[in-house]
Amino acid sequence: MPLGEIADHIGADLRGDANTCISHLATLSGAGPEDIGFLANPAYLGQLAKSRAGAVILAPEHAERFAGNRLISRRPYVDWARVASLLHPAPQPRPGIDSTAVVQPSSAIADTAEVGPLVSIGANCRIGERVMIGPGCVIDDEVEIAADCRLIARVYLGRGTRLGERVQIHPGAVIGADGFGLALDHDHWIKVPQVGAVEIGNDCEIGANTTIDRGAIENTVLEDDVRLDNQVQIAHNVRIGAHTAIAGCVGIAGSTSIGRYCMIAGASGIGGHLRICDKVVITAMSTVLESIDEPGHYGSGIPSRPHLAWKRILVRLGQLDDWAKRLARLEKNKQKSE
Amino acid sequence: MPLGEIADHIGADLRGDANTCISHLATLSGAGPEDIGFLANPAYLGQLAKSRAGAVILAPEHAERFAGNRLISRRPYVDWARVASLLHPAPQPRPGIDSTAVVQPSSAIADTAEVGPLVSIGANCRIGERVMIGPGCVIDDEVEIAADCRLIARVYLGRGTRLGERVQIHPGAVIGADGFGLALDHDHWIKVPQVGAVEIGNDCEIGANTTIDRGAIENTVLEDDVRLDNQVQIAHNVRIGAHTAIAGCVGIAGSTSIGRYCMIAGASGIGGHLRICDKVVITAMSTVLESIDEPGHYGSGIPSRPHLAWKRILVRLGQLDDWAKRLARLEKNKQKSE
Amino acid sequence: MPLGEIADHIGADLRGDANTCISHLATLSGAGPEDIGFLANPAYLGQLAKSRAGAVILAPEHAERFAGNRLISRRPYVDWARVASLLHPAPQPRPGIDSTAVVQPSSAIADTAEVGPLVSIGANCRIGERVMIGPGCVIDDEVEIAADCRLIARVYLGRGTRLGERVQIHPGAVIGADGFGLALDHDHWIKVPQVGAVEIGNDCEIGANTTIDRGAIENTVLEDDVRLDNQVQIAHNVRIGAHTAIAGCVGIAGSTSIGRYCMIAGASGIGGHLRICDKVVITAMSTVLESIDEPGHYGSGIPSRPHLAWKRILVRLGQLDDWAKRLARLEKNKQKSE
Repeated sequence: MPLGEIADHIGADLRGDANTCISHLATLSGAGPEDIGFLANPAYLGQLAKSRAGAVILAPEHAERFAGNRLISRRPYVDWARVASLLHPAPQPRPGIDSTAVVQPSSAIADTAEVGPLVSIGANCRIGERVMIGPGCVIDDEVEIAADCRLIARVYLGRGTRLGERVQIHPGAVIGADGFGLALDHDHWIKVPQVGAVEIGNDCEIGANTTIDRGAIENTVLEDDVRLDNQVQIAHNVRIGAHTAIAGCVGIAGSTSIGRYCMIAGASGIGGHLRICDKVVITAMSTVLESIDEPGHYGSGIPSRPHLAWKRILVRLGQLDDWAKRLARLEKNKQKSE
Repeated sequence: MPLGEIADHIGADLRGDANTCISHLATLSGAGPEDIGFLANPAYLGQLAKSRAGAVILAPEHAERFAGNRLISRRPYVDWARVASLLHPAPQPRPGIDSTAVVQPSSAIADTAEVGPLVSIGANCRIGERVMIGPGCVIDDEVEIAADCRLIARVYLGRGTRLGERVQIHPGAVIGADGFGLALDHDHWIKVPQVGAVEIGNDCEIGANTTIDRGAIENTVLEDDVRLDNQVQIAHNVRIGAHTAIAGCVGIAGSTSIGRYCMIAGASGIGGHLRICDKVVITAMSTVLESIDEPGHYGSGIPSRPHLAWKRILVRLGQLDDWAKRLARLEKNKQKSE
Repeated sequence: MPLGEIADHIGADLRGDANTCISHLATLSGAGPEDIGFLANPAYLGQLAKSRAGAVILAPEHAERFAGNRLISRRPYVDWARVASLLHPAPQPRPGIDSTAVVQPSSAIADTAEVGPLVSIGANCRIGERVMIGPGCVIDDEVEIAADCRLIARVYLGRGTRLGERVQIHPGAVIGADGFGLALDHDHWIKVPQVGAVEIGNDCEIGANTTIDRGAIENTVLEDDVRLDNQVQIAHNVRIGAHTAIAGCVGIAGSTSIGRYCMIAGASGIGGHLRICDKVVITAMSTVLESIDEPGHYGSGIPSRPHLAWKRILVRLGQLDDWAKRLARLEKNKQKSE
C-alpha cells in the first residue's frame, strides 16, 4: 500500500515519498524498507535514529529525529492502531455451517454467519449477521449473538447469554457458568440456583480463559466497549461500566459495580458488594475492599526487594505494635522532663 | 406454584395469602406480584418496605417490616435456596449418547446417562446412572463417574479420575492434568512422571476453568461437599477436607492438606506441604506460608488506599530498619539521662 | 523389573537383592514389597525406617538408615525421576487421524503422528513425526509442531504458533490468542491488531489452562526447556529464557524478558517492559515492578497472621507517616537537651 494512501486514511501529515510501498508492521529496531513503525514512548528515541523503517508515525516534536519517511500525528499510537487495522483487516466470515457442527433446529443462524467445525449450538439461539463462531465453541440454549461478533475458538456461552454487536471472545473463555452461590444448611452446603444470565454490550473484548458468571437472580452485565484481558474472573451480578479495561488475572467478587473508564491493572482483586465510581485506576496486584467514590489512582501492591531486605521488613511489621508503645513512652517521658 | 405449597416445602410460617401464585425468583427491588424475594442482610431493609414482591422470606425479627405475604424463617437464605431449587429444579438428563460423541467400546455408560454432542470418552470408563456429560467434554481412560454427576460442557477429566455422586463441574475445568513435578538434572529439567490420580467425593462442585492436578504418586483428594469457585488451582497431592469452600482465583501448592469446614476467600495463595486444620477462614488475597493448627480467621491482604498515601507507606516500609535503630538510641539516651 | 536393571539404568550403587522385582512407584509410607520409594527430604527420615518398600533410592549419608534394598545416589530425586520414567514410559502415539477429526487438506500430518477424536486443524499446518494431538484440540492455520510433541487434550494453538520438539501442553492451555493491545481514541478503545506469533523451544512444558499471547508485532518467545505450571498468564512479547520454571497462577505483563534458570514461585506478578536477569528466584505471591540485574532471591509476599494481629499491623501502617514526624521531634528535642 502506498504511503500516501496510508497518510490519507489516518489524516496524518506526510513528510517524504508518498509512493513508498508499505506492506508490513514492524518495531523500530526490526523494521526494513517496506515496514512502518511508530514512536509513542520517548524511551525508544534511541532506536528511532537508527531505524531502517520505510516510514515511521511520530509526534510533531519528534519529527526532526528521523531522516526517512514520516507520518506526523498528535496520537502516534492511536494512528498506528488504525494503520495496523488497514494492513491487517479482521478476517471475514466464510458463510455457512460446517458439516461437523451440531446445531439444534430451533436455533436461527444468519445466512452470512460462519459456524466452524465441531461447534455445538443449543436450542432457541439467534446468531446474527456475519458472526464467526470458531472451532470447538459450545453455545447453550437461548443465546443471542448480535451482528459481527467473533468467537475465536473453544468459547463457552451459557444459557441465555446475550452479546451485543462486534464482541470478540478469545479461546477458553467461559461466559455464563453458574455463580458461586451457597448456603450452609447446618452441616453441609446447599447450592443456590443461579437463574440470571450474562449480558455483554457492543464492542466488548473478552480474553482467553476469562470467566464471567451468570447472575444469581438478575444479570451480570458488561456495558459497551469493556475490555477484559486473559484469566479475568467476574463473579455473579457484577456490573462493569462502559469503556473500562481490566488487565490479566484480575478477580472481581460478586455484586460489585465498576464505573466507566476505569482501568484495573494486572492481578488485582476487588471484593464483593462494592461500588467503584467512574475513572478509577487500580494499580497492579492491589486489593480493593472498600467502595471508591472519588476518581483517581488507588493501590496496595508492594514492589519486591532482595529477599533479605524484605525479610527484615517483615520482622519489623511484627514489631510495630511494640514500637507504638515505645514511642508513646518516650513522648510521655519528654513531656515530664519539660 | 401456590405460596402455601412453598411454605409447606420449607416448613416456614406463612403470613398472608396461601393461594398467591409464585412463579419466579427476584431481588426485593426488582420483584413483582408473582415473584418471591428474601431478606437475609439487614442492609436491604430499606428495599424491603418498598418491595412489590408477591412474597418475601424473612427472619422473625423483620416480620413486621413488610406488609405483603411473608414466609417467616430463622434461616432466610437457606430457605431461599430451597425455594429456588423448587422453582428451578436441576435439568434432568435426556438418556442416550449423541451420534457425534466418540465413546471407546470398552467403556460402560449407564442407560439413564446423557452423553452430549462432540464428547470424547476413552477406554474402560464407567459412567453412572443419570450422569449428564455436556457438549465438548473430554474424558480420558479409566475414569469413574458415579450417579447423578453433571459435567456442564468442555470439562476435561484425566486418566483414572474418580467422581463421587452428584458432583457438578463447570465448563473449562481441568481435573487430572499432570502435576508440576520437575527435577533439575545438572543443567536441564527432567519431568517426574505423575502417576497418581484425582479422587473427588460426593456433592462437590468445581468452578469454571478451575484446575486440579493428579497426584505424583498417591492421589489428589477432595472429600465430600467441597466447593470450588472459578479459576482455582489445586496442585498435586493436595487434600481438601469435607465441606470446605474456596473462592475464585485461589491457588494451593502441592501436598498441602486443608481441613474440613474451612473457607478460603478469593485470590489467596497457600504454600506447599502445609497442614491447615478444620474451621480455618483465610481472608481475601492472603498468603499462607505456614501450617495453621488453631481454628480462626487468618490473613495478610492489604486494603488499597489512594495512590499517594500508599506510596508514602511504601517509602516508610523501607525506613523501618533505620527507625528501629533510632528508637533504640532514643531509649538508651533516656535511660542515661535518668 | 528386577532391581538390578533399575540400578544399572540410573548408575546407582545397589545394596541388597538385585533380583527383587519392582513394579510400582510409592511414597515411603505407602510402599509395599514390589514398590520403590525415595528419600530426598530429610524431613521424611522418620518414615524411612518404618517403610516396607521393596527398595529405596537415597543419598550415601542416609544409607544406613534403611535396612532393606537400597539404591545409593548422590541425587535421589533426579534418579527417582529417571526410575519413574522407566516404570511409566510416556504413552506412544497410535499413528493415524481419527475419523471425527477435521483437518484442512493443505496441512501436512506426519504418518507417525496421532490426531485424536474431535480435533480441528486449520490450513497450511505441519505436524511432525510421532506428535500426539489429543481429543478436542483446536489448531489454527499455519501452525508448525516439531517431532514428539504431545498436546494432551483441548489445547488451542493460534495462527502461526511454532512448537519445538518434545513440547508437552496440558488441557485448556491457550497459546497464541491476541495480546491485550488497545489504544484510547478520545472516548473509546480501538483494538491494536496483534500480528506476531508464539514461538516455543524444545522440551517446554505448558500447564493446564495456561495462556500465552501472540506478539503484537514480533513474537512472544519461550526458549528451550521452559516449564510453566497451570493458570500462568504470559502476555504479548514476553521472552522467557531457557530452563526457567514458573509455578501456578503467575502473571507476566507485556514485553518483559525473563532470564535463564529463573524460578518464579506461585501467584507472583511481574510488570511489563522489565528485564529480569538469569538465575533470579522470585518468592511466592510477590510483585515485581522493576528490572532485576543481579541473580538472587527477591520477594514481597506477606505471610498471613491471625486476623486480629494482622488488622493491628494494618492500622500501624496508616500511622507510619505520623510516627516519622514524632521520631524526628523526639530526636530534635534530644539534641536540644544535649
